[in-house]
Amino acid sequence: MTPSAISHEELAEAWPVLTMEERLEGFALLSRVDAEELFLRLESHQQAELLMAFQPAERRAWLRLLPPDDAADLVQEVQREARDGLLEQLDDQTRREVVALLAYEEDAAGGLMNPRFARLRPDMSVDAAILYLRRQTREHAENIYYAYVLDAEQRLLGVVSLRELMTAAPTKVVRDVMRAEPLSVPEDMDQERVSHLFAEHNLMALPVVDAEGRMKGIVSVDDIVDVVREEATEDIQKLGAMEALGAPYLDVGFAAMIRKRGVWLFVLFIGEMFTATAMGHFEDEIARAVVLAMFVPLIISSGGNSGSQAATLVVRSLALRELRLRDWLRVLGRELRSGATLGTGLGAIGFARVALWQHVGFYDYGPHYLLVAGTVWLSLIGVVLFGTLAGSMLPFLLRRMGLDPATSSAPFVATLVDVTGIVIYFQVASLVLRGTLL
Amino acid sequence: MTPSAISHEELAEAWPVLTMEERLEGFALLSRVDAEELFLRLESHQQAELLMAFQPAERRAWLRLLPPDDAADLVQEVQREARDGLLEQLDDQTRREVVALLAYEEDAAGGLMNPRFARLRPDMSVDAAILYLRRQTREHAENIYYAYVLDAEQRLLGVVSLRELMTAAPTKVVRDVMRAEPLSVPEDMDQERVSHLFAEHNLMALPVVDAEGRMKGIVSVDDIVDVVREEATEDIQKLGAMEALGAPYLDVGFAAMIRKRGVWLFVLFIGEMFTATAMGHFEDEIARAVVLAMFVPLIISSGGNSGSQAATLVVRSLALRELRLRDWLRVLGRELRSGATLGTGLGAIGFARVALWQHVGFYDYGPHYLLVAGTVWLSLIGVVLFGTLAGSMLPFLLRRMGLDPATSSAPFVATLVDVTGIVIYFQVASLVLRGTLL
Repeated sequence: MTPSAISHEELAEAWPVLTMEERLEGFALLSRVDAEELFLRLESHQQAELLMAFQPAERRAWLRLLPPDDAADLVQEVQREARDGLLEQLDDQTRREVVALLAYEEDAAGGLMNPRFARLRPDMSVDAAILYLRRQTREHAENIYYAYVLDAEQRLLGVVSLRELMTAAPTKVVRDVMRAEPLSVPEDMDQERVSHLFAEHNLMALPVVDAEGRMKGIVSVDDIVDVVREEATEDIQKLGAMEALGAPYLDVGFAAMIRKRGVWLFVLFIGEMFTATAMGHFEDEIARAVVLAMFVPLIISSGGNSGSQAATLVVRSLALRELRLRDWLRVLGRELRSGATLGTGLGAIGFARVALWQHVGFYDYGPHYLLVAGTVWLSLIGVVLFGTLAGSMLPFLLRRMGLDPATSSAPFVATLVDVTGIVIYFQVASLVLRGTLL
Repeated sequence: MTPSAISHEELAEAWPVLTMEERLEGFALLSRVDAEELFLRLESHQQAELLMAFQPAERRAWLRLLPPDDAADLVQEVQREARDGLLEQLDDQTRREVVALLAYEEDAAGGLMNPRFARLRPDMSVDAAILYLRRQTREHAENIYYAYVLDAEQRLLGVVSLRELMTAAPTKVVRDVMRAEPLSVPEDMDQERVSHLFAEHNLMALPVVDAEGRMKGIVSVDDIVDVVREEATEDIQKLGAMEALGAPYLDVGFAAMIRKRGVWLFVLFIGEMFTATAMGHFEDEIARAVVLAMFVPLIISSGGNSGSQAATLVVRSLALRELRLRDWLRVLGRELRSGATLGTGLGAIGFARVALWQHVGFYDYGPHYLLVAGTVWLSLIGVVLFGTLAGSMLPFLLRRMGLDPATSSAPFVATLVDVTGIVIYFQVASLVLRGTLL
C-alpha cells in the first residue's frame, strides 16, 4: 500500500459530482486496496459506469470482486449489448448464478437474494456441522450466521443460527436443534412485502424458495435497509407530484428528468384548467363583487393544504401497513371531525382578518364586509372539510383499484380541491350575499 | 402449548384497530408461547400500553422478556410517574443497563444501542475465544456475530467476526486476526447519521464508544431498518405540511393530531393571506378585465406544483446525502433549465386552451383573446421558473441555517409561489394588455 494524495473516503464523498475523467484520475491515484474498498462502496449504477470506462481487459478483476447478487445488479445497469461481454469475464459458477439472478425481476425477492448460503444436512452432528461451516465459509458463503438445513432435493427443512449451534450439545444432530418449517418467501414476492416481513418478525435473514420448496438463496437485512430507503424515496417523489426518478438527482439525464416531472405537471395542469372553467361560470358574480375574487387563492389553497395533509398521512400509513383497506370508515369518521375542526379554526382567522382590515382601514370591503367575512368563514369550513375527505379517501380508492396510493395523491387532491373549492366558495357567496353584493 | 381460536399472527395484524378490551381478551386466548411471540412483535408503544393494562403483579414476567434496549424503549413510552415502578420489576443488572440507556436521547446512537455484546481480550487464543464466546452466548450477548476486543479499561481495540474467528488457525491470538481501529460512533451521534454510515459501509453492526473510547454497546443493522423507515415517515409528513406525528395514525389522539396538523395549516394560511393583499393591489385590473381573474388559480397552482417537485427532489436528495450544500449552484443551473423548459411547455398548452376555447366557442375572451392567451403563456414561464428556483433553493437555505430542509418545504414553497405568482401574472398582464384590456 503506497500513500496517496486523496483517501478513498474523500473520493467516495465527492464521487457523484465528479466527471468521469476526474473519477478515473482519482481512482488511479489510490492504492489497489483502497481502490477496491472504494469500488465495493459504490452503488451498482456507479460501479457499472466506472467499469465500462475501464479498458475491457481491466474489467475482469473488478467484476470478480463482487458477490453474485451485486454482480447481477451491476450487469443489469449496463446496456443490453454489453451484458454478454461482462458475463464472460466471470468464473463459471458465478456466471451461472448471475444468469439465474438476472431472470428475476429487480424488485422481487429473487432479484434481491444472494444465492450463496450455508447449507447443512439434518443428520449431521452439531460438532460436524460447525466443522463443516468453517470449511464452507472459507470458500464462499457470505453469511454463515444462519445455516439452512436442506434435504437431498434441496428442499428447506429448517434453520439454525450459528449461535444456536455453538451453544448446543456437540453430540446432538442438526435436526434436534434446528427450527423446523422456518418462515420463507417465494422468489417472486415483491421486495416491499419482503421488507415488511423483516420488520414484523425482527429477522436478520430470510430464505427464498421456489414453487417446489427448493431453497434458492437468502435475503439479508442489510439489503432490506436499501429497499426501505428506495421505497420511501419513490413514495416521496410520487407524493411530490412526479414519477419516481429511480436514480440520484445528479445522475438523471436532463431529458429524463423533464419527462418524469413534465408528465405529472401536464396532467395536473389539465385538471387545473377546470378552475378557469369554474371561474368562468361565476364571471357575473366576480364582475359585480370584485372583492370575491381576492379570496379565491386563500380559500382554495387552504383546502389543498388540508387535503395534502390527509393524503400524505393515509398514503404513508397504508405503506407502513398501519392502516388497511378495511379501516377506511374509521379514517373517514376521524377526518370528518378533523376537517370540521380545522376548517372552523381557519375560517375564524379568515373572518377576523377581513373584519380587522376593515376596522384598521387597510382595505375597504364595503358596507357588507361582515357578510364577506362570513362567506370566507363558511367557505373555509366547506373547503377544508372537502379537502380532508378527498385527501383521506383517494388513497384508499387507489389501493382498492390495485393502484399505488402514493401516485401523485397529494397534488392530485390539491387540484381536485381547487376546482371544487371555487364552486363551494361561489355557492356560499351567492347564498350569503344574495340581495346585498350579488 | 394448547390450540387457540385465534393465531398470534392474526391478532398482531388486527392489533392497531382493536380496543384495549379486545386486545386483552384476544391475548388471554393465546397459549403462553404464542402470547410471548406476539408481545415481542409489538412496537414499544404498543407493548407499553398493553403492559400498563395488566395487573401490576403480572408485569414483571413480560418486562423481563425484553433485552435492555427494548425494555428502555418501553419504559420511555409510559408516563413519567409509572417508570420507577417498572424499573423495579427488572433484575439488578438489566435495571442498571436500562437506566443508563434512558439517559440517552431516543434518536442518538446511545439510545439505539444494545449494551450487551460479545467481548474478547486481545491476548486470548482463537480457540479460547470461540470457547469463551459459546459461554457468553448462553448468558446474555444477543449478538455474537461480531466480537469486540477490549483492553482492561474497556477501550475498543478491534473487532473480529465470528466467521473470521472460525476460519482462523486455532493457535493464533485474537490480536492477530482482529481488525484494529474499527469504525465506531460516539454515543450522541444522531441516528440518521448512524444509518448513513451503515449504508455507506455495508455494515451489520457498529460499536458505540464514549468520549474516552470505552465501548458502551452495539447498534445492529436491524435497528437501522426501523430508523430508516421512521426518518422517511418524518420527512414525508413534514413535506405533507404537518409536524411529524411520531406514532401510527390511529394511535395518535385527536387533540394531538389537530395540533400537529393545525400549526402548519395556520402558518400557511397566514402566509396565503398575502394572496388577498396581492389581489387587492390589482383590484382595478380585475374590475376592468374580469377575464384575468379566471386564470389566477391555474397559473399560481402550476407554480406551486413545479415548486413542490423541486423542493421534494432536493429535500430527499439532501436526506440521502446524494446532494451536499456545496452542490447548490449545480442544482440552481439545472433547475433554471428545467423551469424554463417546463414553464414554456405548460404555457404553450395554456395558450392553446384559450385560443381553442375561443375558436370552438366554449367561451368568449373578447377581441384581444390572443393577447390574453399570450399573457397566460408568458406568466406561466415566469411562475414555473420562480417555483422551481424557490423550491430547489429553499431546502439548501434551511440546511445552511441548520434547520431541517424537510420542514414543510413543499407547501411553504407553494404558498410563496402563490403570492409571487399573482404579482408576476398581473405585471405581465399590464405589460401585454396595456392599451387594449387594461
